[in-house]
Amino acid sequence: MPLGDSVPKAEERLARAALTRLTEPGDEKVGRWLRELGAERLARGLTGAGPPPSGVGEERLAGCRARAADLDPRRDLDTVARFGGRFLCPGDREWPGQLDDLGDARPIGLWVRGEANLRLWALRSVAVVGARACTDYGSYVSATLGARLAELGWTVTSGAAYGVDGAAHRGALAAGGATMAVLACGVDVPYPRGHAELIDRIAEQGLVLAELPPGGHPTRSRFVLRNRVIAALTRGTVVVEAEYRSGALVTARRARDLGRYTMGIPGPVTSGLSAGVHELLREGACLVTDAAEIGELVGDIGELAPERRGPVVARDLLAPALASVLEAVPGGAGGDLGTVARNAGLARDRALRALHELRALGFVERLDDHWKLADRTSTSDMGKPPGRRRSVRRGGS
Amino acid sequence: MPLGDSVPKAEERLARAALTRLTEPGDEKVGRWLRELGAERLARGLTGAGPPPSGVGEERLAGCRARAADLDPRRDLDTVARFGGRFLCPGDREWPGQLDDLGDARPIGLWVRGEANLRLWALRSVAVVGARACTDYGSYVSATLGARLAELGWTVTSGAAYGVDGAAHRGALAAGGATMAVLACGVDVPYPRGHAELIDRIAEQGLVLAELPPGGHPTRSRFVLRNRVIAALTRGTVVVEAEYRSGALVTARRARDLGRYTMGIPGPVTSGLSAGVHELLREGACLVTDAAEIGELVGDIGELAPERRGPVVARDLLAPALASVLEAVPGGAGGDLGTVARNAGLARDRALRALHELRALGFVERLDDHWKLADRTSTSDMGKPPGRRRSVRRGGS
Repeated sequence: MPLGDSVPKAEERLARAALTRLTEPGDEKVGRWLRELGAERLARGLTGAGPPPSGVGEERLAGCRARAADLDPRRDLDTVARFGGRFLCPGDREWPGQLDDLGDARPIGLWVRGEANLRLWALRSVAVVGARACTDYGSYVSATLGARLAELGWTVTSGAAYGVDGAAHRGALAAGGATMAVLACGVDVPYPRGHAELIDRIAEQGLVLAELPPGGHPTRSRFVLRNRVIAALTRGTVVVEAEYRSGALVTARRARDLGRYTMGIPGPVTSGLSAGVHELLREGACLVTDAAEIGELVGDIGELAPERRGPVVARDLLAPALASVLEAVPGGAGGDLGTVARNAGLARDRALRALHELRALGFVERLDDHWKLADRTSTSDMGKPPGRRRSVRRGGS
Repeated sequence: MPLGDSVPKAEERLARAALTRLTEPGDEKVGRWLRELGAERLARGLTGAGPPPSGVGEERLAGCRARAADLDPRRDLDTVARFGGRFLCPGDREWPGQLDDLGDARPIGLWVRGEANLRLWALRSVAVVGARACTDYGSYVSATLGARLAELGWTVTSGAAYGVDGAAHRGALAAGGATMAVLACGVDVPYPRGHAELIDRIAEQGLVLAELPPGGHPTRSRFVLRNRVIAALTRGTVVVEAEYRSGALVTARRARDLGRYTMGIPGPVTSGLSAGVHELLREGACLVTDAAEIGELVGDIGELAPERRGPVVARDLLAPALASVLEAVPGGAGGDLGTVARNAGLARDRALRALHELRALGFVERLDDHWKLADRTSTSDMGKPPGRRRSVRRGGS
């Protein structure tokens, strides 16, 4: 569903930032108005500065006008900038195009902390989700998956909650990997409290995303709606432990409805915390037992719309910062993160982000803790799109 | 593959008994000769008392003649009779017709201990198989499945081995249920040693079957070939715990190739004893977590060939022993095994066997520890074939 967005002008960006405060995430009516009227007219219409959109109810309008009282999108943009963040809109180069699959429920924009390129990281991302009150088994499996998926070059995406989410993020962080947290609150709100440090660490090494503007607080419905972003952003969703009627199952079923892979890690049939996963598997989700099986499955999809539509990045068109990190990767067997960072004269976190972007573009590969030039990254092959490489890999598997 | 067997004459029965000693189970060449020459000519040909079958190798012929030296099928029939057993042949009313699906690898005959009607019990049977050296988890799950499947009216079928097999049999026995053990040795050989008592108990309350004649000893290849009988005899095979390359997986894949349901009980991905099961599930076997799910799945097949071909048993055509037990089942909510046995003036084991046969014929139902008349077992409905009942049940599920 290519929505044909053009690069947003400053006014549109400001209006979209305002709309993230005026409306709730995932509201399809808002999405439709946005499509029909554009962000600026819609923001004016909802705040009383212009004619209201047709069909808007009195109650909704009153709610929007109440929220409009302390509306200051410039302040929100400044706040997120102080956290080293930004506000991304459809049409931005960094916007992950696969979110278009959500149609009118597509996020109005995304508040982002962290320096990595969201679009590139999301291209090779997998969601690992599950129970907050997971067992030691779930916690162990999540951390191991997070670490191994990261080592295989996947961006581990989750919701920063206690239990499975946190373990998956931690596993990816510990393995020096890429990880993204999608929050149901503002990117500056440490929720859950006990994960304040973890979320900060993810923002340093990875990415923290939210639809809610700075200061936004989580609610039950926002958790549910947040899940659609995790589902849409990633190539597939793995559920580690989940009871019946768990939020993680919502994410997985949403992923399935969006045409993404849904996967489950089995557990003992005697454990209520595996019952939801088993239900999902009985509905047709794919049983996976380790990161390699996950990578094999989602790596094969290869054709997520935005990747196919994306620009072909030739080596000599890489941004200078990426190009210098690519130069820093030793030939042959490659080198570990420390070597690449030293060669490039960069901090480890910064080198790692660049390596994951180069990974998404197909220039480098990660094997355990080693980074090496991709087989087809040679002088004669400059500028081949990643799709070419992937199809070669698939043939060999 | 209806082979159109007629009721075997005494000479044929004797010849088939002899052939179970002269040849190895599951030998398709022997099956072809048997089909072409008949049992008597084949037995004579292999013992030197007649022309050898065309294409028989010298070595094989020498082997058969050596075995012929102490051949005495009448003695074997006497031996099994002393154990309260019998020798069943294709064409016997009690022969389970679904074994025909094995084609030329169909058993030449089956040595049977136990008084239940094999044909009727096998109609509603499920195989529960798995690792010998199972974990406590596997043992617990197997015993629970055995008990619950029995309570749901299924005949729990397995191989009497240590581990999963034994736990499944024990669960069924403890629940006062129907269970069948298919051995890779003679029905009089207590193998494994430690299960001598268990096997005797199965022969009392259930059925013990073997292709090997009395005294026959198990070998590696006989275990593998025994598995095809378990797979063919039952409506589906459930694997509880199995390592990669486990014999239980052979049974399950055999079941799949025969068009039976293959099912697996998941376990922790950290357990090597669940790895084989997970592999099977990834190949497309159905993930099941309890007996109800198993019953729902295999109960739906409803159309296993022999059942469809089977005679329609009208209530007034029931054997007197069965009819008297049917009379002994209280109307309405029914009654437990003790009540039915008392009413019928029979020992519990005997009443139980009859109830399971009546269950297979669709006259009674089992709910937990209660036996009640099936919904459609009414005066006006006498003689309706079980197939009718089942289709009604399916519509309601």
